Amino acid sequence: RTVIVNLFSCFLQGILERLDAGEIVIGDGGFVFALEKRGYVKAGPWTPEATVEHPEAVRQLHREFLRAGSNVLQTFTFYASEDKLENRGNYVAEKITCHKVNEAACDIASEVANEGDALVAGGVSQTPSYLSCKEKTEVKAVFRKQLDVFMTKNVDFLIAEYFEHVEEAIWAVEVLKESGKPVAATMCIGPEGDMHGVSPGQCAVQLVKAGASIVGVNCHFDPETSLETVRLMKEGLQAAKLKAHLMCQPLAFHTPDCEKQGFIDLPEFPFGLEPRIATRWDIQKYARKAYDLGIRFIGGCCGFEPYHIRAIAEELAPERGFLPEASEKHGSWGDNLSMHTKPWVRARARKEYWENLKPASGRPYCPCMSKPDGWGVTKGAKELMQQKEATTEQQLKDLFQKKKF
Amino acid sequence: RTVIVNLFSCFLQGILERLDAGEIVIGDGGFVFALEKRGYVKAGPWTPEATVEHPEAVRQLHREFLRAGSNVLQTFTFYASEDKLENRGNYVAEKITCHKVNEAACDIASEVANEGDALVAGGVSQTPSYLSCKEKTEVKAVFRKQLDVFMTKNVDFLIAEYFEHVEEAIWAVEVLKESGKPVAATMCIGPEGDMHGVSPGQCAVQLVKAGASIVGVNCHFDPETSLETVRLMKEGLQAAKLKAHLMCQPLAFHTPDCEKQGFIDLPEFPFGLEPRIATRWDIQKYARKAYDLGIRFIGGCCGFEPYHIRAIAEELAPERGFLPEASEKHGSWGDNLSMHTKPWVRARARKEYWENLKPASGRPYCPCMSKPDGWGVTKGAKELMQQKEATTEQQLKDLFQKKKF
Amino acid sequence: RTVIVNLFSCFLQGILERLDAGEIVIGDGGFVFALEKRGYVKAGPWTPEATVEHPEAVRQLHREFLRAGSNVLQTFTFYASEDKLENRGNYVAEKITCHKVNEAACDIASEVANEGDALVAGGVSQTPSYLSCKEKTEVKAVFRKQLDVFMTKNVDFLIAEYFEHVEEAIWAVEVLKESGKPVAATMCIGPEGDMHGVSPGQCAVQLVKAGASIVGVNCHFDPETSLETVRLMKEGLQAAKLKAHLMCQPLAFHTPDCEKQGFIDLPEFPFGLEPRIATRWDIQKYARKAYDLGIRFIGGCCGFEPYHIRAIAEELAPERGFLPEASEKHGSWGDNLSMHTKPWVRARARKEYWENLKPASGRPYCPCMSKPDGWGVTKGAKELMQQKEATTEQQLKDLFQKKKF
Amino acid sequence: RTVIVNLFSCFLQGILERLDAGEIVIGDGGFVFALEKRGYVKAGPWTPEATVEHPEAVRQLHREFLRAGSNVLQTFTFYASEDKLENRGNYVAEKITCHKVNEAACDIASEVANEGDALVAGGVSQTPSYLSCKEKTEVKAVFRKQLDVFMTKNVDFLIAEYFEHVEEAIWAVEVLKESGKPVAATMCIGPEGDMHGVSPGQCAVQLVKAGASIVGVNCHFDPETSLETVRLMKEGLQAAKLKAHLMCQPLAFHTPDCEKQGFIDLPEFPFGLEPRIATRWDIQKYARKAYDLGIRFIGGCCGFEPYHIRAIAEELAPERGFLPEASEKHGSWGDNLSMHTKPWVRARARKEYWENLKPASGRPYCPCMSKPDGWGVTKGAKELMQQKEATTEQQLKDLFQKKKF
Repeated sequence: RTVIVNLFSCFLQGILERLDAGEIVIGDGGFVFALEKRGYVKAGPWTPEATVEHPEAVRQLHREFLRAGSNVLQTFTFYASEDKLENRGNYVAEKITCHKVNEAACDIASEVANEGDALVAGGVSQTPSYLSCKEKTEVKAVFRKQLDVFMTKNVDFLIAEYFEHVEEAIWAVEVLKESGKPVAATMCIGPEGDMHGVSPGQCAVQLVKAGASIVGVNCHFDPETSLETVRLMKEGLQAAKLKAHLMCQPLAFHTPDCEKQGFIDLPEFPFGLEPRIATRWDIQKYARKAYDLGIRFIGGCCGFEPYHIRAIAEELAPERGFLPEASEKHGSWGDNLSMHTKPWVRARARKEYWENLKPASGRPYCPCMSKPDGWGVTKGAKELMQQKEATTEQQLKDLFQKKKF
Repeated sequence: RTVIVNLFSCFLQGILERLDAGEIVIGDGGFVFALEKRGYVKAGPWTPEATVEHPEAVRQLHREFLRAGSNVLQTFTFYASEDKLENRGNYVAEKITCHKVNEAACDIASEVANEGDALVAGGVSQTPSYLSCKEKTEVKAVFRKQLDVFMTKNVDFLIAEYFEHVEEAIWAVEVLKESGKPVAATMCIGPEGDMHGVSPGQCAVQLVKAGASIVGVNCHFDPETSLETVRLMKEGLQAAKLKAHLMCQPLAFHTPDCEKQGFIDLPEFPFGLEPRIATRWDIQKYARKAYDLGIRFIGGCCGFEPYHIRAIAEELAPERGFLPEASEKHGSWGDNLSMHTKPWVRARARKEYWENLKPASGRPYCPCMSKPDGWGVTKGAKELMQQKEATTEQQLKDLFQKKKF
Repeated sequence: RTVIVNLFSCFLQGILERLDAGEIVIGDGGFVFALEKRGYVKAGPWTPEATVEHPEAVRQLHREFLRAGSNVLQTFTFYASEDKLENRGNYVAEKITCHKVNEAACDIASEVANEGDALVAGGVSQTPSYLSCKEKTEVKAVFRKQLDVFMTKNVDFLIAEYFEHVEEAIWAVEVLKESGKPVAATMCIGPEGDMHGVSPGQCAVQLVKAGASIVGVNCHFDPETSLETVRLMKEGLQAAKLKAHLMCQPLAFHTPDCEKQGFIDLPEFPFGLEPRIATRWDIQKYARKAYDLGIRFIGGCCGFEPYHIRAIAEELAPERGFLPEASEKHGSWGDNLSMHTKPWVRARARKEYWENLKPASGRPYCPCMSKPDGWGVTKGAKELMQQKEATTEQQLKDLFQKKKF
Repeated sequence: RTVIVNLFSCFLQGILERLDAGEIVIGDGGFVFALEKRGYVKAGPWTPEATVEHPEAVRQLHREFLRAGSNVLQTFTFYASEDKLENRGNYVAEKITCHKVNEAACDIASEVANEGDALVAGGVSQTPSYLSCKEKTEVKAVFRKQLDVFMTKNVDFLIAEYFEHVEEAIWAVEVLKESGKPVAATMCIGPEGDMHGVSPGQCAVQLVKAGASIVGVNCHFDPETSLETVRLMKEGLQAAKLKAHLMCQPLAFHTPDCEKQGFIDLPEFPFGLEPRIATRWDIQKYARKAYDLGIRFIGGCCGFEPYHIRAIAEELAPERGFLPEASEKHGSWGDNLSMHTKPWVRARARKEYWENLKPASGRPYCPCMSKPDGWGVTKGAKELMQQKEATTEQQLKDLFQKKKF
């Protein structure tokens, strides 16, 4: 099979030009989970000081996503806001400042983006400041510090991602819009909506009104659930007669048993999620459904490794007209098994086989589903916790238990 | 927590000195599976031309294993014998020769080993020449070509790994012993023994008699099964009053449903194995059992990512007196969750929690076990296949079906 | 433990007097499934000609339910309408007439009821006449034929059960009300409502308005789902300011994977449902939840064996003040294991053990959930099928496929 | 389909004449489990006082098995030895004596056997006397008491069943042989052999030498495992050049996760076994395999309901030339679904469908396998327990833990 090089893509166009032209834009995968497994990120804080400490590891992961087909390289600035970095004590302020982390992230992403056909997107995410009920001005100032770096480094566009509250997401969009660059906004919510109970449809409407040109979801839920959330966003936008591009960057974990706050409440989070990891074929199905739903910015979040991104690119190769570079090392639908010495392994070199396989877990003592922890915490509960009005966990639990089955 | 640096390890000692002194030596993980997911190796042929094509990707993976605690970096020369590389047509002979692949592998491994406390081991594995019934001299010549490079590059010791037939493994050991360097030999067999029916105990005895100082298993089976195989090897050696160090490098996949030829015959091989991936806690249990069994060279094979190797190093930190570098980014038994904002996530920051977790698959439509494909192929069957005496698959199947349940 | 005999219950009161007084009334279990396994009923037609052919088998099952705690013995007249019996050719009209089947059913139930504290309820269920779009008058005539027998035999009250369409259920209630006896009405629907899309709340309201004093659900769904449906019925009645007693007689099978038409569409129906059978402890949980929800007529349908009914009676013994006769042979929460010779079996003689047990299936090659067959058939589809407008199954499938995921 | 009546069977022949002539003899199912669910037997003691207390319930179950195809009705005298009945205090000695229980059991079985083509077999099983280390004479006296009744009532032949120790089984056979009637002997062991470590092959040899004409296994293990045990018995007999008929009466529960002492050590025993219940199709597979293995006395034990026995009779109908009476109410391989109104249910009316169905459990929070309780208790452990040398459970556990994985 020949890998067709997309000649047009050499003329680098902006994110909106691409989407407006009907192009499929492939996002990248999840940095914190991949780099945690590689030994560079700490689960719990999930902060990105690796951009300064181990740039070679971050650079390599960017390269792998680029090679797998990503058209957008997000700066590794997740949770890189000053309040988060300080909060977690993950760096010595004099040495690894917030500024340095963001700068390094931009430099690395740009360096790799220049090796291929990719845009660089500067990203901000939800802040401890908002969660601890700081004022709007203060929260916006936090985003602005990151934006300053993105402007100096001249990233191509901006993403506000991983917001549980649409209110904070709107503030982020408002700050990012000051730059004049295109802004995408994705929330880490499911079909039930944000933590204040705002529906996906309403979230989308408010984000577009705030200035986002691209809206959708990322993280917290599996592909199936995330697509349903984006579908509801689309409906909301249509009802409000608003136009925006749709974006989806879900988990690469199967999480049918999640509740409102997603996979964080699953007992397996974050160190026992392996049995839930999506296969490349699961991701091909996701890519197809996303496309059919009208989503054109299709990527992944936690759990998405380079080969999952490649699966998106391979599934949509007929529509896009080309394969990613990494497909040099991958036969579509397993066709590289057709030369295997064992006839029954050769028999796996076809689409029908992998499409219909129901993979076993090899774990006969484990269940298929988990009961999520947590009590479906609402904003009220969270405020209570932060205000320390409930002195013990038990009190809090008693307070909210009733509403749970 | 303080990461204690092992000062003694600065004085680099050879593999046998270490093992003789009672040290625990931690191996590295699986290159072909990890690099396949990263986009640099093709499943099916599984050849390592990436050492020439993408040295930065190979180098980064070595670094991650080193950082995770590996004391041995194996040259990425799996399936790098001339007959295999040619057979698969995975390179243009004039450009990416067998010689170059092996040379580059040595250079990369040495470069990274010098960054820390690790030995470099040159590795050979089973050959198409043997499987197609070539003469002993011819098969040995294949190994000798790789050995020449290892000698020029002056690797620390040698590993003959991934052999299904002890006869070929012995030939490999005999060749490697010509070098005067220590030789380790691991077979990809389970408790039922090699493909000619030689028991694990007998395999071990013959390999030691051929000159191997370290014997054990790698690949094809999960940690539990592999440990049982090494236990049988140990018994065999004791019965024969032979001494050798034990080594184990299993899959990081749960494969209780395997038959004699291991995970290759599972319907999920190689593109649907995700639900079987071991958690870090599974690997800690493996490391402890391996240690208790007297195994002192403990590593992994396919599926082992850097965080799995780190899990070995963390489990055995009390015995070794130090943690690996990558533990800077990892709290033992999840203790980095102790600061989480949600009380029920904080509750996961303890050993008992992760030790007892039975992780769900999130796949309610999938089974727990698979029926392996294949027909328990024996040497006879294989010969038949290669000699093309059976013209159709069906004929072959008919021939061997009877012996299966 | 002493089995306390309920002296008051000797004075036989009517169903409404009991419920009005706040008593818990325990229904019986599933006849067609139990007798199918015993060899007297044919799966598929599910008709009750056994009342004539093998009265001893029917009598014995009644006795077992009585002994297990049933306060109501339903005549075994499920699908005993003339049109159904003829339709299925399950009897030679001259010999085993519809009249004889219904008469024998009444005689057997009365005979056993007299042996204890139980009422006899004459039951009618949905008819082929309705499903083939016969007129109201004609359908009502079918019910009236059965009612005539019930009046002659002077049953205590009447139940219209197993209706998928509230319209037909209403017609049945109207006919039964002509008798002057109390009427209960249960539909075989889930939370999505009847086959024409009438919600559970609306169904309940209309049935009460038509004359039913007791409303609820039976069959088609598991206890959990059925309780949710009754909860919705209760809400509907409250909103309409109507009063009625609530009744629940679900399956004793776990069916979380059902769609609108319930367990009939599960691939396991009706000959592979074994792994789904509820344990006695599952049923105790159901009984408690039903009670807490305000349901006072609590029984079972297909899959409910005598020991399941006993589980209801045992769970609610504290509220009722007595145990059923069959508890002579059953220790509450397994306490009859406390004398076992093996200490680890003795350790099972306690509530916490059985309450928390997650029973294994012993079927590692089977999944936990199934994808239901069928296409969520609506009334329209059914009409089409009956009118033979769709000549092939494929055409029909094409027609309705679209609405399915 | 026509139900062909077996005319020859009217001429009642003895068990050995039938087996010698090559006939397939179908046993009956499990009484204690079936009657426990019907409310007449207490789990734990499992004693058969129901023969006196509720003869109608015992009679009905016999009838159902007869109707399902049983050629042998075993007297319901399981655990009806005097020491067991007294031990458990399950009856008032003056009223329900051991003698009466055994007499009633014979009367009921004979009455029903006369209604069809069945032999009556008097049965004895292992005794508390043996387990508490009583002398041979004393243990034999216990069996003789039951035998006296069987002789008075003139049963057709005798079965010594459910023995964990071959020594006791031999004693039983020796006593039963005094009668001059044919004797069958089945042990409740798996492939690992009896509780003293005697292999299945050796058990069979010793039982035949003691006088048994029919040997095999019953209870404790699933069909698959039990067939393997009988296969080993057959091998043992062949090696010893002994001739005997083979018999198999396994559980109707899937128990792949059992250890040496079978399903009693499974956490689900005895009140949570539902998900493990075999389907009729599982039993058809068992019947076929049993037949192919040369077993000609094929029945069931705990969990076998009448429809499971019918499944044996239906599977072997081609060999036997007739169907059982209860097949009047059962279409072979679900063919009675061929008239269903729903096309997708009609599609289930075929052998391929049910043969290949992997039934779901509907229990996504449950595992597929359990870890057995217990510590693989050996004779030594048991003696210790009985001799109270180990004062606490923990001491005992410590003692035996080591040998467990």
